[in-house]
Amino acid sequence: MRYLHHFWLCPFSRKIRVILGEKKLEFELVFEKFWQRREDFLKLNPAGQVPTLIEEKKLILPDSTSIAEYLEEVYPDPKLIGSNPKYRAEVRRLLAWFDLKFFEEVTKPILEEKVFKRFMAMGHPKTEIIRVAKKNISYHLEYISWLVERRNWLVGDDFSFADISAASHISCLDYLDDVPWEDFEIAKTWYVRVKSRPSFRPLLNDRILGLNAPKHYSNLDF
Amino acid sequence: MRYLHHFWLCPFSRKIRVILGEKKLEFELVFEKFWQRREDFLKLNPAGQVPTLIEEKKLILPDSTSIAEYLEEVYPDPKLIGSNPKYRAEVRRLLAWFDLKFFEEVTKPILEEKVFKRFMAMGHPKTEIIRVAKKNISYHLEYISWLVERRNWLVGDDFSFADISAASHISCLDYLDDVPWEDFEIAKTWYVRVKSRPSFRPLLNDRILGLNAPKHYSNLDF
Repeated sequence: MRYLHHFWLCPFSRKIRVILGEKKLEFELVFEKFWQRREDFLKLNPAGQVPTLIEEKKLILPDSTSIAEYLEEVYPDPKLIGSNPKYRAEVRRLLAWFDLKFFEEVTKPILEEKVFKRFMAMGHPKTEIIRVAKKNISYHLEYISWLVERRNWLVGDDFSFADISAASHISCLDYLDDVPWEDFEIAKTWYVRVKSRPSFRPLLNDRILGLNAPKHYSNLDF
Repeated sequence: MRYLHHFWLCPFSRKIRVILGEKKLEFELVFEKFWQRREDFLKLNPAGQVPTLIEEKKLILPDSTSIAEYLEEVYPDPKLIGSNPKYRAEVRRLLAWFDLKFFEEVTKPILEEKVFKRFMAMGHPKTEIIRVAKKNISYHLEYISWLVERRNWLVGDDFSFADISAASHISCLDYLDDVPWEDFEIAKTWYVRVKSRPSFRPLLNDRILGLNAPKHYSNLDF
């Protein structure tokens, strides 16, 4: 059996869950409080980070980008990264945009202040940090709108890693009710299309003890 | 002509310079003070980051991982990422190790405190941050030693993106004389082998105005 060590509100873990779903690959989730640096987990992945995919006993894959590239190479159906180098370069550019830039400017500060500080008992969230991150999200939603006004999906005709990455980050923030959907109708339409894919359903069914999602979180018609 | 927008002590820019060198692809360097967010540069790459490769007028590639994957696909000789999915997964795992983990724990704090604060006139370096980063580098050098005791290069028989990434980060720190080579003979032997490759020579010839490299920086027999 394939095992994915993950954390519910980790956007990178979510990305791999969706990719496995799109490629119809079976797997079991292992919930990992990665900040506890569990010894057995560090033996699997010395970086101590989720997601970590146990593809087989002797093939342990850490890092969501490496996992995604591996899955695309070994299970190319359906293609999620495009069929020529230029298209793939654009998919990877947007993947980096969301996994590095969006993460640094939006997902990370909001998750750290609102979720991890609570789990790790590290004191109260800093409202100023959350305020800046919530301001940053707007220009990213504008960028998504700009892209989907010109393209069917974020990169072009095909649903790709770029859509999966963007939607994975956004879904974490949506769980915390931190996405100003009312101001971004076009981005919202794109997100509804991602949400309605069967691969995305399991994410929408996640519920975290003591942390309630807003009503619209799993609603496709919000 | 191919243009690479770069910054001297950016490890990601260095990585692409070495890859272009290994693949014997000609290019011209464009020095970019990326923190000034030059308007013409933002038009090329809205993320405003180096490296950005202008492969042709209509093909602008940002993000070092995307650039590396593109170059490997279009110019596969010599192969720098391995010839099967498992090997490539290990290359990408170590690439992420150095570009994310090592960068966060070592390169970024040291460059920010010692280099960028000076360029941006942001005050004096914080010695405590530098002290922690210099402590962190030791376990990474131990990890490199552990790997090259078991393998010819970091991943296996072949020189790969993993060696290029690790050496690019380390070369920036070495320019600042922040690598405790005396305690890590095995890692040093590996680094000398990387340094002696023709693709690495241009990096060793870089000199930054007002910031002198130590004598051993460009010396192969240090």
